[in-house]
Amino acid sequence: MATSATTPNTLLLKNPTARATVKPSPTHAFPTPRATAKPLSIKCQHSATTAAPVSPPTTSTDRLFNFAAGPATLPENVLLKAQSELYNWRGAGMSVMEMSHRGKEFLSIIQKAESDLRKLLDISDDYAVLFLQGGATTQFASIPLNICKPEDPVDYIVTGSWGDKAYKEATKYCKPKVIWTGKPEKYTGLPVFDELDQSINARYLHICANETIHGVEFKDYPTVKNKDAVLVADMSSNFCSKPVDVSKFGIIYAGAQKNVGPSGVTIVIIRKDLIGHAQESTPVMLDYKIHADNNSLYNTPPCYGIYMCGLVFEDLLAQGGLVEVEKKNVKKAQILYDAIDGSGGFYRSPVEKSVRSLMNVPFTLEKAELEGEFVKEAAKEGMVQLKGHRSVGGMRASIYNAMPLAGVEKLVAFMKEFQAKHG
Amino acid sequence: MATSATTPNTLLLKNPTARATVKPSPTHAFPTPRATAKPLSIKCQHSATTAAPVSPPTTSTDRLFNFAAGPATLPENVLLKAQSELYNWRGAGMSVMEMSHRGKEFLSIIQKAESDLRKLLDISDDYAVLFLQGGATTQFASIPLNICKPEDPVDYIVTGSWGDKAYKEATKYCKPKVIWTGKPEKYTGLPVFDELDQSINARYLHICANETIHGVEFKDYPTVKNKDAVLVADMSSNFCSKPVDVSKFGIIYAGAQKNVGPSGVTIVIIRKDLIGHAQESTPVMLDYKIHADNNSLYNTPPCYGIYMCGLVFEDLLAQGGLVEVEKKNVKKAQILYDAIDGSGGFYRSPVEKSVRSLMNVPFTLEKAELEGEFVKEAAKEGMVQLKGHRSVGGMRASIYNAMPLAGVEKLVAFMKEFQAKHG
Repeated sequence: MATSATTPNTLLLKNPTARATVKPSPTHAFPTPRATAKPLSIKCQHSATTAAPVSPPTTSTDRLFNFAAGPATLPENVLLKAQSELYNWRGAGMSVMEMSHRGKEFLSIIQKAESDLRKLLDISDDYAVLFLQGGATTQFASIPLNICKPEDPVDYIVTGSWGDKAYKEATKYCKPKVIWTGKPEKYTGLPVFDELDQSINARYLHICANETIHGVEFKDYPTVKNKDAVLVADMSSNFCSKPVDVSKFGIIYAGAQKNVGPSGVTIVIIRKDLIGHAQESTPVMLDYKIHADNNSLYNTPPCYGIYMCGLVFEDLLAQGGLVEVEKKNVKKAQILYDAIDGSGGFYRSPVEKSVRSLMNVPFTLEKAELEGEFVKEAAKEGMVQLKGHRSVGGMRASIYNAMPLAGVEKLVAFMKEFQAKHG
Repeated sequence: MATSATTPNTLLLKNPTARATVKPSPTHAFPTPRATAKPLSIKCQHSATTAAPVSPPTTSTDRLFNFAAGPATLPENVLLKAQSELYNWRGAGMSVMEMSHRGKEFLSIIQKAESDLRKLLDISDDYAVLFLQGGATTQFASIPLNICKPEDPVDYIVTGSWGDKAYKEATKYCKPKVIWTGKPEKYTGLPVFDELDQSINARYLHICANETIHGVEFKDYPTVKNKDAVLVADMSSNFCSKPVDVSKFGIIYAGAQKNVGPSGVTIVIIRKDLIGHAQESTPVMLDYKIHADNNSLYNTPPCYGIYMCGLVFEDLLAQGGLVEVEKKNVKKAQILYDAIDGSGGFYRSPVEKSVRSLMNVPFTLEKAELEGEFVKEAAKEGMVQLKGHRSVGGMRASIYNAMPLAGVEKLVAFMKEFQAKHG
């Protein structure tokens, strides 16, 4: 491992930018207009075009319960706030989407997002927080490119599709080995950590903390045997759903579009001493040093997505932080799993009970031929995206932070009715 | 060059997804509420939380003229439309930000965005249109990785900072050569195409069609000498500002956040026969074949950004397409350059007249010590982001499609006053 802190991308580095600090506004929501408001005709002062007659903004009561796995439901108050300030953000005279990423307004937005995330997860200064593009899928390559030499052995625990994809991508950049796979049991469980045959010199041990498709979630984490190695976790689908001891990890990464924002933002939390040794062939946009040195502003970041994440982080803090958020998630998941377990086999969860995900709940019907009707009937009741992932079939309810308790209660009530009708 | 159409990423391929077709809604804007609307207190039906008292959405008349170079001003009617449907998109019962990227609503959005873009630029079926993450900066690596072998010679024309960055990144993945550089003249001109010393076997010739920092724009394009090679252009800062004969190019790429949307979306238009020969070390997210085969849905795309681009494309078509848009841009640029040229030297444009950009207008003051005051005074008048790029100083007015004529007229009036006061 090179001891120098420069990378082939150093020649492209700019100076880190300074940041302004601005006090946050309180969170507030948007009024619900009457459904039959009359359209208005206006002329914009600053525009030569005549605006056509309009409808008022829709905040109607026909909002669905959206059980999609990502992109996913967002907190209602966050959406309403974003809507209220889309055209003119807090008197700035422009939308967040129009701001120079190097101007003081956007700097205040990204700075606040980062500091709120640090509060939420209690992230120490030993770690950098990066807001990147490219999805978790780019991180599958970035991680080995940045912290491995091509000949380095690396261990992967594969507990579902996403761990499998991460492993396959890593084969290009290091010498990864699958030291445990849940595939023989159809990805319904986790390994016993003490029984893991970890490689002596593995540079890192990779896990997918929550498998979105298979609904398998780590409740605690393996210890990496090699003292010089680190634990790396894809937390895309349970990020900020519960507290995490970040100090156990070298890298945590997460696509925002499950629990904390819209698609287009990937958050990387990386211990600083791991940065600066990227392989020579690393594209500049995949080099953590470039992004860390430039506070995620080496090039234009996904500004609106970062802003939305910031609103979500604020909202999570307002709920009392991740301890409180976890309580809600445990409660919601409990209601749903109880309904499955209490159905006498009409509904079935394939996952080993101790590792059932709080976020993604796959289940099947004893009478599989009813699955299409289940999804259709649920949609009529205003509950959508319950079809299981195309690779596994069945049903799946994703019940992220922003899924209200009322949505889970409605789903469970529907499940009981459906069983009564078809059982 | 491998003749097989498979890449090392083939094992990660999924089946292309089908797309639904939905008729577009007409464009309409958002009413302007009175500035002193009273806050309301509401309880959301679907949420257990009580919404706090709110302010109505701000569409006040204090919108600034924003001359930023990207992210940049967006069309006002597009922002108002996005605002009106942020919470509930056209009766879908959810925001675009919450939609499954594989659901019929979002499929209709991305399909319409692509078909509108094809109309705007008259893109034939010989070309794929991709909506990617990672910025143009990722494309600096993607292009040589996808269409070159590591030993392939490639020609770069460097007319400013962005062409220079593209060249430097390419050194990792092919054998690029700068066959012409504007650096000796401080990036104020373009080469005479006939005098270019193109390499015999260059795989492609790369240009930056419009240099955002230096304000130098190609008005026509060089012919590539090598019949087997292609012309590749970074059109980030003049994309959709004027018609382009796409058939002259092998690849056109553009970060959306100058002329067609918010940051976080990069559009790549690539001739299909160039796809499928990526180098083995290419990260899956940089492999064009993966994205083309999956209609940009291999993983979760930047959905909200794509939606915003779609609204912009609709708006450009409504204006009569790029022939009409170019007329407006020519007019706006003319007014500003005339003001500079007619100032008797008080204002100066460094760029060779025949290649002056219609999009980015850098200029200096004869009395350089007044530049800070110019920017400050202009800001007081509601014109912001006029400071030049930090690498060149001076001033810069970016006057993309969405900068209204009124903004340029106001700037010019201000420039005349300022000169009268300080000349």
